[in-house]
Amino acid sequence: RLRALYTASAGAFLLRWLLLGGLIGALAGTASAGFLVALDGVTRWREAHAWAPALLPAAGLLIGLAYHYFGQVAGRGNNLILDEIHRPSRAIPLRLLPLVLGGTLLTHLVGGSAGREGTAVQMGGALADQLPRWLRLTAADRRLLLIAGMSAGFASVFGTPLAGAVFGLEVLWLGSVRYDAVLPSFLAAAVADAVTRAWGVGHTAYPVLGALPLTPTLLGGALLVGALCGLAARGFIGLTHAVGRVYARFIAYPPLRPVVGGAVVALLMWGLGTTRYSGLGIPVILEAFQHPLPPAVWAWKLVFTALTLGCGFRGGEVTPLFFMGAALGSALAAVLPLPVALLAAMGFVGVFAGAANTPLACTLMGLELFGGQAGICLGLTCVVAYGFSGHRGIYGAQVVGQAKHPHRQPEEGQRLNEL
Amino acid sequence: RLRALYTASAGAFLLRWLLLGGLIGALAGTASAGFLVALDGVTRWREAHAWAPALLPAAGLLIGLAYHYFGQVAGRGNNLILDEIHRPSRAIPLRLLPLVLGGTLLTHLVGGSAGREGTAVQMGGALADQLPRWLRLTAADRRLLLIAGMSAGFASVFGTPLAGAVFGLEVLWLGSVRYDAVLPSFLAAAVADAVTRAWGVGHTAYPVLGALPLTPTLLGGALLVGALCGLAARGFIGLTHAVGRVYARFIAYPPLRPVVGGAVVALLMWGLGTTRYSGLGIPVILEAFQHPLPPAVWAWKLVFTALTLGCGFRGGEVTPLFFMGAALGSALAAVLPLPVALLAAMGFVGVFAGAANTPLACTLMGLELFGGQAGICLGLTCVVAYGFSGHRGIYGAQVVGQAKHPHRQPEEGQRLNEL
Repeated sequence: RLRALYTASAGAFLLRWLLLGGLIGALAGTASAGFLVALDGVTRWREAHAWAPALLPAAGLLIGLAYHYFGQVAGRGNNLILDEIHRPSRAIPLRLLPLVLGGTLLTHLVGGSAGREGTAVQMGGALADQLPRWLRLTAADRRLLLIAGMSAGFASVFGTPLAGAVFGLEVLWLGSVRYDAVLPSFLAAAVADAVTRAWGVGHTAYPVLGALPLTPTLLGGALLVGALCGLAARGFIGLTHAVGRVYARFIAYPPLRPVVGGAVVALLMWGLGTTRYSGLGIPVILEAFQHPLPPAVWAWKLVFTALTLGCGFRGGEVTPLFFMGAALGSALAAVLPLPVALLAAMGFVGVFAGAANTPLACTLMGLELFGGQAGICLGLTCVVAYGFSGHRGIYGAQVVGQAKHPHRQPEEGQRLNEL
Repeated sequence: RLRALYTASAGAFLLRWLLLGGLIGALAGTASAGFLVALDGVTRWREAHAWAPALLPAAGLLIGLAYHYFGQVAGRGNNLILDEIHRPSRAIPLRLLPLVLGGTLLTHLVGGSAGREGTAVQMGGALADQLPRWLRLTAADRRLLLIAGMSAGFASVFGTPLAGAVFGLEVLWLGSVRYDAVLPSFLAAAVADAVTRAWGVGHTAYPVLGALPLTPTLLGGALLVGALCGLAARGFIGLTHAVGRVYARFIAYPPLRPVVGGAVVALLMWGLGTTRYSGLGIPVILEAFQHPLPPAVWAWKLVFTALTLGCGFRGGEVTPLFFMGAALGSALAAVLPLPVALLAAMGFVGVFAGAANTPLACTLMGLELFGGQAGICLGLTCVVAYGFSGHRGIYGAQVVGQAKHPHRQPEEGQRLNEL
């Protein structure tokens, strides 16, 4: 009798989350589709107008004012959603959605260096948190909804449902995963990705890697790239924080920070005479798989992204991290006897794995984007990058679940930005 | 300065585990290669001698005597290794290796229905636990070594390094994963798989699935197959335990149990007039991907495996679980409008995911064996099967990390076989 009850409760849970997960998936998938189309339009416009970066200070002012006067908590971005999952306090305002969407599009329009996963994840989380107002849901349901919303946003913006599903579970804690939200996350991610595709929105196709036997050279290469990716991730996090601190110290009025920050980015771009570090940088990412890039490329992307996001522009960190990683891996092809596409793919997933502390989601992303043949190499890179990035991350509200090294166990249970 | 120290410690950890993980990988990979070659020979011999099952009682006596008089704790198999990871008490005896190897080969020689992952995992664990005798290692190192040894054994016996790496991490706890062993597991799994392949030992090639858009039919199919897989897993675990209890109750002298159990299996085989449920059953698994199998096939494999393993024969559960799942999915192709190969693949990974409570490892296995195109379908099946299998599993020493449902939270921290 108990067993029948248990099966019935598992069945009820499945049907309930088929509905709720399907609903969030449809909402987040539609939001991502709209976002991707708009982002594409904005990027084309920028590429056609070389003077667009001259608008960086003006766009910065707009974003700064909007977040300062209408944003309230919204300025905390992804961390707001993570905090609500760990320590629920109040509903996530729907106004987060237009703010982050508008802010991201404006950032990309004028050539800031930023990504898109933050936007999609925040839209997914904000949409998911509207459901408890309309449906009768418990606090436990709300928690699962928020996690599923993050998964749905991530899955649909990159076209990688498995990576998205696992990302939502893995990003909450550094060093551990819990499975309470596994079914909601998988369902929401699967539906969101299908909905984005059903709207006719496609994703960048990356080269599929061939099978390679794991030789000592390949193993050593994967570990070396992983270690460098972890250090690059740490450098990026450190520089972004430093930029934020400097602006906060010298400019008291927050809306002015992205104005000055935008001017700095624009001047640097003008000084270098290139706009290749603007926006997502997909063309350069694809170039990284074709031939070795100069080592300066990844370093400049790091600097541009830290300068853009550190002063208050909006967007995600992930695509710039893909860029840095792919360019870093590609640069190593000049010295390592390994295929450039493989090295670029390792870097692509590795820097992100180290920066977000999500090695399994990044491994799955590697399998979904580059095919299964090089899976274990990509997995090794992600795991080593995770080991080398320390107790730091692009999401300050991530909580240490299991310390990376025994001597840091006292930090378990603390948020990364409290350390 | 602290940062430099931290990087140095991450580097030292990497180099240390490159050595240790490489060593376990080489040992476990070599053991798996020898095991696979021997298993292949034994299976050929049995297929050429239709009367082999007549030897089941005699083989049962040999295995029963060996485990009773020389085995000591070895009879606990995988659970011994899991217990040593959770609550270390004494070194795992090297004699576990010849016992489980001989017992498994004998079981397969005479046509018992059994698998191979248990053997590989136990060999990996037993070999790993020899290293602390020769090298100076701490208790924390030993724990990581045992986990890495399990990962290495699993990875090399199936040729799926990512699934193996994650299996070692995921099998310890039901409902949660911790990352302390993530680097040792990935390294050992990668090296073990490469070493097995370097010995020239190949693995079964399964059909690569094509891309399918996620339609409501496909989503519903994946969820339905998942639910049935979870229930089938629960049925298998229940029946295996019941068989064990019946033999323990009516036959006081343990070595006699596999004698009687062997006779029962042989008689049932003779009554059905088929040996297709003997051994791993790879040919039937491959058949399941080609055309729908009758529904009786998966049920008989369940019964034969429970009867074989419940009375004391040796081997793993996993390949029979693949068989049950693939046959179950294949049978559903008669009623569901989905490709038979896709349904068979869903069942293949689903029953195992439910029975071992390892949905992520099984999803990765699906990606490694069947290609990345159907990844999210396989993932959904695994996650739903996990949800439907309850707090039960083929590894009784698995500890509940996070309950599958809130009302079972009091069970967190308990071993499955204590519930």
